[in-house]
Amino acid sequence: MSVSLTLALDAMGGDDAPDMVIGGIDIAHRRFPDVRFLLFGDESRLRPLLAARPQLAAACSVHHTPDVVTAEDRPSQALRKARNSSMRLAIDAVRDGAAGGVVSAGNTGALMAMAKVVLKTLPGIQRPALATCLPTLEGETVMLDLGANVESDEYHLVQFALMGADYAHTVRGVANPKVGLLNVGVEELKGNEIVKAAGQILRAANPPFIFHGFIEGDDINKGTVDVVVTDGFTGNVALKTVEGAARMFTEFMSAAYRDSFRARLGFAVAKPALTALRAHFDPRAYNGAVFLGLNGIVVKSHGGTDEIGFANAVVSAINMIAERLTDRIVADFEHFLAEVVPDSKAAAS
Amino acid sequence: MSVSLTLALDAMGGDDAPDMVIGGIDIAHRRFPDVRFLLFGDESRLRPLLAARPQLAAACSVHHTPDVVTAEDRPSQALRKARNSSMRLAIDAVRDGAAGGVVSAGNTGALMAMAKVVLKTLPGIQRPALATCLPTLEGETVMLDLGANVESDEYHLVQFALMGADYAHTVRGVANPKVGLLNVGVEELKGNEIVKAAGQILRAANPPFIFHGFIEGDDINKGTVDVVVTDGFTGNVALKTVEGAARMFTEFMSAAYRDSFRARLGFAVAKPALTALRAHFDPRAYNGAVFLGLNGIVVKSHGGTDEIGFANAVVSAINMIAERLTDRIVADFEHFLAEVVPDSKAAAS
Repeated sequence: MSVSLTLALDAMGGDDAPDMVIGGIDIAHRRFPDVRFLLFGDESRLRPLLAARPQLAAACSVHHTPDVVTAEDRPSQALRKARNSSMRLAIDAVRDGAAGGVVSAGNTGALMAMAKVVLKTLPGIQRPALATCLPTLEGETVMLDLGANVESDEYHLVQFALMGADYAHTVRGVANPKVGLLNVGVEELKGNEIVKAAGQILRAANPPFIFHGFIEGDDINKGTVDVVVTDGFTGNVALKTVEGAARMFTEFMSAAYRDSFRARLGFAVAKPALTALRAHFDPRAYNGAVFLGLNGIVVKSHGGTDEIGFANAVVSAINMIAERLTDRIVADFEHFLAEVVPDSKAAAS
Repeated sequence: MSVSLTLALDAMGGDDAPDMVIGGIDIAHRRFPDVRFLLFGDESRLRPLLAARPQLAAACSVHHTPDVVTAEDRPSQALRKARNSSMRLAIDAVRDGAAGGVVSAGNTGALMAMAKVVLKTLPGIQRPALATCLPTLEGETVMLDLGANVESDEYHLVQFALMGADYAHTVRGVANPKVGLLNVGVEELKGNEIVKAAGQILRAANPPFIFHGFIEGDDINKGTVDVVVTDGFTGNVALKTVEGAARMFTEFMSAAYRDSFRARLGFAVAKPALTALRAHFDPRAYNGAVFLGLNGIVVKSHGGTDEIGFANAVVSAINMIAERLTDRIVADFEHFLAEVVPDSKAAAS
């Protein structure tokens, strides 16, 4: 695929970095041979990995830094002290226009704090939000906010709805995304004051997406909507709850497999079907949460992922840059958000 | 098992009522032959069902009413108009001391509103909470609040923690329950102001349970704690999210089974293991949410359950009455809550 753009990488973030980072961009490079990679990290570790991959090496520039943000660093510490870290320099490259986006598998809190301070929010966006895709019975759904904010008001939820719809449209190719607000019931009178107010705004406005109304927790995996909108507290709990339920199910499946010779035999015969099933839930396929609403694309990979998972995060960042997701959010702000969110221009500045 | 007590039943609540109600108490009756059942509902439908079960009939009294609360009734309507409904009369029987508790598979909102108004909260409890058991990798966990309240402050969360621990102790037999507060991270600084404040109160106090600290969404099914405490909004979303994830998983399993002759053959051979797996997730085994904190036991069964599921809800109500759960909550209020919740006596009255 011929896509010409540049992506910055925190080459030192993640449990198996930098090996898994280099392995991941190598996979992405085969799919997007014209994309350039700016690697920030320890040159003495990166050079040998690239030397073994001459074709990839030709698409990379290495920017040496010995500093790293660790998993233990608090966001505030990382902001103050880690000005020469691989994570910070990769974000700076986006601010300076050297790259259209950045991917990191490092410390989530530090990445969010740094990206927000360095890149700033897009005009009209008061709060950035963390979004990801999840498997559903119908395919996939986008969910946000997953924890960029611990408290949200109704206007924040409206902004999340718009950004989520733009993400579903540009990156997942959903022409007219259906957006639902996560609530404790589907009737208009259900829920807390903030969710009810956000529902009223979206029903009264003429948003550039289909507002489906309220949805409940079981609608997430049912695939009732293309975009699930919620506050960062509820979204974080819901995402991790899905992950925990999936893990319980797969562990019980493994236990059932170990149960008896007969079970092992049966599962061995059924293996192709089980492999397809497992592929559908492969967490690596859903790796990469995007931090939406900033001047630039910021993708957070799971820290514990392998090169296949990291490649998926990189591919998703490339798609968002290529499809000009941030431009679309800005355009939608002018056509829609500016009408419904009071003082959004002032608040964004 | 020799347990002598009386349970009131809304015989008309639920999709398949009254048949499923009578079938359900018949199953429970075989296990608890000394329990008496007060049935509220349409006599002309109840009498023939009981006539076919003479042993059960001897343990039942039928109180005729033609009125029912429908699934469409709003809680406020039901409160005002349905004073002779099967649901209301069954709750009244608990208030009047004729029964120790009530089970209904009817309209959840109406049941909660009626029970709260008719039975009132226990001394020291400001807000009742809805609790249920969920399967985990380690066995089962209790989760509350599942939606009795849409907003909760830190003192409400502390009360939920105590009631959940008492439930785990008396009904599930956990000698020293481990209680966790659902949050977006495990560190003390994580979360919104209410969760942080509740964590501080529980860490500083000397509660009659083990306060584990903060937990995350994936800890629910992992079985990290015996009791998961959260506000009614987050708890409702998390519960339904688990249900939705379980449904997605089982539907994909069914699809994998239909995939090919080879898959069907393999799954047929593995059937005993799959049956055990399915039994572990059988929603009927987890049927019955209890409305904790009222003067009397109020159990809500799923509306769509069958007689096996309804029997489980009835058995769980019998256990709560037999183990004197409400007495224990009152005693714990005096020893613990009165110390940590300001004005709890005043607020409860």
